[in-house]
Amino acid sequence: KEPFALITGPCQLESLDHARMMAERIAEACAPTKTGFIFKASYDKANRSSISTKRGLGMEEGLTILSKIREEFGCPILTDVHDAHQCAPAGEAVDVIQIPAFLCRQTDLLLAAGETGAAVNVKKGQFLAPWDMGNVAEKIASTGNERIMLCDRGTSFGYNTLVSDFRGLPIMAATGYPVVFDATHSVQQPGGQGTTSGGQREFAPVLARAAVAVGVSALFIETHEDPDNAPSDGPNMIPIEEMKALIGNLARYDSISKES
Amino acid sequence: KEPFALITGPCQLESLDHARMMAERIAEACAPTKTGFIFKASYDKANRSSISTKRGLGMEEGLTILSKIREEFGCPILTDVHDAHQCAPAGEAVDVIQIPAFLCRQTDLLLAAGETGAAVNVKKGQFLAPWDMGNVAEKIASTGNERIMLCDRGTSFGYNTLVSDFRGLPIMAATGYPVVFDATHSVQQPGGQGTTSGGQREFAPVLARAAVAVGVSALFIETHEDPDNAPSDGPNMIPIEEMKALIGNLARYDSISKES
Amino acid sequence: KEPFALITGPCQLESLDHARMMAERIAEACAPTKTGFIFKASYDKANRSSISTKRGLGMEEGLTILSKIREEFGCPILTDVHDAHQCAPAGEAVDVIQIPAFLCRQTDLLLAAGETGAAVNVKKGQFLAPWDMGNVAEKIASTGNERIMLCDRGTSFGYNTLVSDFRGLPIMAATGYPVVFDATHSVQQPGGQGTTSGGQREFAPVLARAAVAVGVSALFIETHEDPDNAPSDGPNMIPIEEMKALIGNLARYDSISKES
Amino acid sequence: KEPFALITGPCQLESLDHARMMAERIAEACAPTKTGFIFKASYDKANRSSISTKRGLGMEEGLTILSKIREEFGCPILTDVHDAHQCAPAGEAVDVIQIPAFLCRQTDLLLAAGETGAAVNVKKGQFLAPWDMGNVAEKIASTGNERIMLCDRGTSFGYNTLVSDFRGLPIMAATGYPVVFDATHSVQQPGGQGTTSGGQREFAPVLARAAVAVGVSALFIETHEDPDNAPSDGPNMIPIEEMKALIGNLARYDSISKES
Repeated sequence: KEPFALITGPCQLESLDHARMMAERIAEACAPTKTGFIFKASYDKANRSSISTKRGLGMEEGLTILSKIREEFGCPILTDVHDAHQCAPAGEAVDVIQIPAFLCRQTDLLLAAGETGAAVNVKKGQFLAPWDMGNVAEKIASTGNERIMLCDRGTSFGYNTLVSDFRGLPIMAATGYPVVFDATHSVQQPGGQGTTSGGQREFAPVLARAAVAVGVSALFIETHEDPDNAPSDGPNMIPIEEMKALIGNLARYDSISKES
Repeated sequence: KEPFALITGPCQLESLDHARMMAERIAEACAPTKTGFIFKASYDKANRSSISTKRGLGMEEGLTILSKIREEFGCPILTDVHDAHQCAPAGEAVDVIQIPAFLCRQTDLLLAAGETGAAVNVKKGQFLAPWDMGNVAEKIASTGNERIMLCDRGTSFGYNTLVSDFRGLPIMAATGYPVVFDATHSVQQPGGQGTTSGGQREFAPVLARAAVAVGVSALFIETHEDPDNAPSDGPNMIPIEEMKALIGNLARYDSISKES
Repeated sequence: KEPFALITGPCQLESLDHARMMAERIAEACAPTKTGFIFKASYDKANRSSISTKRGLGMEEGLTILSKIREEFGCPILTDVHDAHQCAPAGEAVDVIQIPAFLCRQTDLLLAAGETGAAVNVKKGQFLAPWDMGNVAEKIASTGNERIMLCDRGTSFGYNTLVSDFRGLPIMAATGYPVVFDATHSVQQPGGQGTTSGGQREFAPVLARAAVAVGVSALFIETHEDPDNAPSDGPNMIPIEEMKALIGNLARYDSISKES
Repeated sequence: KEPFALITGPCQLESLDHARMMAERIAEACAPTKTGFIFKASYDKANRSSISTKRGLGMEEGLTILSKIREEFGCPILTDVHDAHQCAPAGEAVDVIQIPAFLCRQTDLLLAAGETGAAVNVKKGQFLAPWDMGNVAEKIASTGNERIMLCDRGTSFGYNTLVSDFRGLPIMAATGYPVVFDATHSVQQPGGQGTTSGGQREFAPVLARAAVAVGVSALFIETHEDPDNAPSDGPNMIPIEEMKALIGNLARYDSISKES
């Protein structure tokens, strides 16, 4: 079994320079363990808590920047789409199209993503049981595209709180598709700060350790050089300077998981 | 205070003849109590559990049928949209545009719905706290359209189960916008039958009674002449022949609520 | 069907004088609607959040006071027990023995309560589904005592929060035993203030209205002349001066429920 | 940091011979990794779902058997108590007194357990947030006994289901007391089989792996030579013949956790 891949990057794409700097520092953080990474950033935060928060650079500029990062760093790129019409252009520019959790049941979006031929990473809706992701995967697979990844980013648990049910990882893996654990969104507190979501950054490494011990194909961890001043998801992103040590630690648990 | 309005109709639009028959029978069921009704039907079930279930007639044919019902019955019409591009045509044909619960945070959809000038009924996401609906309403209101309704259709409670928290009704009402209680989707068991959602029809009248006693501006109750053979939501729709008695019963509780 | 009975009183027994004053004011509040009441107070708060909060007068003094209230006011009395050994003396002094929610599965306590021959009001554990209360009732009924009441006081919903699932009332009623809705504990926020539980008093009347509309045999509503300074449960008790209006309002919904 | 200790044994004490056989096989399973074990068995299942299921041998016979196991095997013994009066005799016979989850807020029981001077393992109530366990520990510590262990055995998540929130382990560890993860009760489905609880034995090793990766002082894993025919908790116990491999696997993750 392969070591975990790492889907990582800043939540929101800020500029070409910022993306470049982040990609460089991520490459450095991954180097000691030879961890393969997929660079992740969003060109549009299309479902933010409040109308008054920043949405991002938009699709056109965003995809141009992401293509450049792919060229310069030779790493695969992941971005998320919000509308069926965005899938074709995104599929040209990136390697992995991501379906946001709230949209994981939208048939047209899943079909359009599948039809690009790109890999598709679907986040499990916070409102969905892990065993319901089989039906979601089948919608994508009906296009003939079987390059599907299923990602857990937490499940609704009372109000403004998510919980990570680690039974869900083997349940989703039983579909045969690779399973991803999203450690930074799983510690979000949705809507927990009035007009933005809160987060508990300190628990992201805790849950990531649990996930690799349980066994996953990939981890999803958002990172930033200055999370507290990031345009979105600051409360749950990991500071980039902590990533090397974190990856090194996770890789040790992962190597035991992957032996058996 | 006004008596409750009733948003009702079959979950899925089946044909002009079927819609006409349903509208007639609904009008009869509402007559004794002079309950005002808004005819509801969906032209597309865009987020069904499984790819193998029926999606419906499509937007063009669907809106044509809904326009005819409006003309013939003189009643307002509600339908749901799934994509920002659908808002403008839907806004021409119907009086109330509905935002599905899974999509209640999609900014572009909310803005496009608001911009039509039609009334907008937003279902609270199963993953959202009632106090987070203020931010949702503000997104719509930012278009200048304040004809907003906030609708509770249940909150995630463990897996494949929803719970109705009746504290949410006054909390949402504190926004100043009218509040709707959706009694038939609140008893859904999402994904509970493998490839379709289950439901507990017998509890819809129970929760509807609780809602009118707490106090709501409108109720949302889907109905069908033969729920067990309906193309969607059969397990939770109310048989049309039971609607007259149900409305009569609910109206009595409502009249007490509206006095105070 | 009978109008609802009201189980009411201060959470914690403070003194004979206080109990007498409360009983008088409760009798006044119930008079206009001729609502039958059962006087409730606890002689020991045996499971408080923290060791540093007040527990109460103790069993001996407490039962003496409660007996006097019964004599003077001629009303039935309810109190809760915490240990099998307390059941026999409590059964002498009061009419209804109450099993606390945390203890609703303790077989010895249920059997000892049943064996007194007194009526037994069991609170559904916050961790229990309503359909699991049938097994609880059977434990009591195995003593030959069928004077059982099943009471909903909310179900765990995430952390430090309860939710009232009104489907639970008809589910528990299907056992054939009378069902009680506890409106003041259902709005508790367990542990929500660090060393004590918080509460949302303003929602108790909301949930009580929902409960009578759904249909119950009795309501449980704790009250105090000065809740903010009460020794326990202040945040969720109803001020005594609001009780008359509340009872009057609830009785109107109840009369509709009881007709059908 | 010390390797994890293992609290293990059959859920219910069946006979001296059975306890002896189990202790022998447990010692064998623990030998290769030199894992220290605490033998656990209950003399009374005092809160079973239904009155018709077996409760066990009773305190007197039970404590006698447990004392013999301690003598013969030289291992510490853990058993659970259900009533303050049981604490003193239990404290004579065993090394660790366990407070059941439903009873974790019962002040008298906590004080009586603390006063024995034995170590006290308190299970977090399914209805309690992990941060509320500090108050629970303080009740015990108020007796001067600080030999306290805090144990997570799952949290209510909808009906008949528990979820393990692994953020709870570091939260409880912040009290300074050792933290235990109970892998077999965390996969219980309370009341899930009508008159008994169901369970998902296959997920116990999954959650145990997650727990040691997160970091715990001890694991709690019930085991039996024939779980499907055990008098209680069969659906979630681990077959004894699988324990050696499981312990070996867990020890590898644990050694990484304990380095840092």
